[in-house]
Amino acid sequence: MIKKAIAVIIGSALLSTFSVFAEPAKSDKQAKDVTEFRQAILTLVKSNVGVLGAMNKGAIPFDAQTMQTNAMRIEQLSLMLEDYFATDTTGFDVETAALDKIWENQADFKNKISALTAAASNLNKVAKAGDTSQFKPAIGQVFKSCKGCHDNYKED
Amino acid sequence: MIKKAIAVIIGSALLSTFSVFAEPAKSDKQAKDVTEFRQAILTLVKSNVGVLGAMNKGAIPFDAQTMQTNAMRIEQLSLMLEDYFATDTTGFDVETAALDKIWENQADFKNKISALTAAASNLNKVAKAGDTSQFKPAIGQVFKSCKGCHDNYKED
Repeated sequence: MIKKAIAVIIGSALLSTFSVFAEPAKSDKQAKDVTEFRQAILTLVKSNVGVLGAMNKGAIPFDAQTMQTNAMRIEQLSLMLEDYFATDTTGFDVETAALDKIWENQADFKNKISALTAAASNLNKVAKAGDTSQFKPAIGQVFKSCKGCHDNYKED
Repeated sequence: MIKKAIAVIIGSALLSTFSVFAEPAKSDKQAKDVTEFRQAILTLVKSNVGVLGAMNKGAIPFDAQTMQTNAMRIEQLSLMLEDYFATDTTGFDVETAALDKIWENQADFKNKISALTAAASNLNKVAKAGDTSQFKPAIGQVFKSCKGCHDNYKED
């Protein structure tokens, strides 16, 4: 598993930490691997957001501690997201719901990631403060930022 | 996607933040979903560890800033891992490399997660301090903690 990851990295600057511009993938293998990695990070975001959605719908009770933890995790993951989209897989035959225009509108895409960071950070604060009247709107803001990006950059 | 996640959560205390004991999965669907989530988090760990491995093998140059970022991310992910293994999928027909004894030896499994946290935290410190002589052993410690857990709890 480690060998596989290394092979990818040698091929290109995968997950180069402070990338300013996306770089095109250099091989099918690299395109496939970065696609797997970006799907993994969004799956993790989903696993945290889902719990919050269940609270907002009344399926499970609001729990300020869980809200804080999940908000923190979403924030941490959101701060990784840009790097996970730093490799442009356009033109490679990968199974992905990521639309090509992600790499054509990078500034906007990054703004949409920042909206998630801000919403998660705010939710963490709200949960810490324990102001129950703000729980629902703060969670709603997280969902809004997910949808704001998916509507533009994710295949239906 | 959100609906799917919520359905899982209603079924059980998925990713309950401060679980002390693992709970058995309550349905095939839940077992499948938590398996997907735990594979996602380990895929993310891999994506960060792979870069460090490439540095240790000389395939790419040591870069203290990337080391810090990846070490921080591995530490953050390691602190999520316990929750992602909180649902015991033993006895469900899921495609997993996780061995059943994870849920029979939880204290030991958690110690092995803590070893990863400690190794990542140390690597972050070493990279920040810029002591190049320590780069290789600090990365080696991260790999050792991966292997320490995989040797015991991951199918070959």
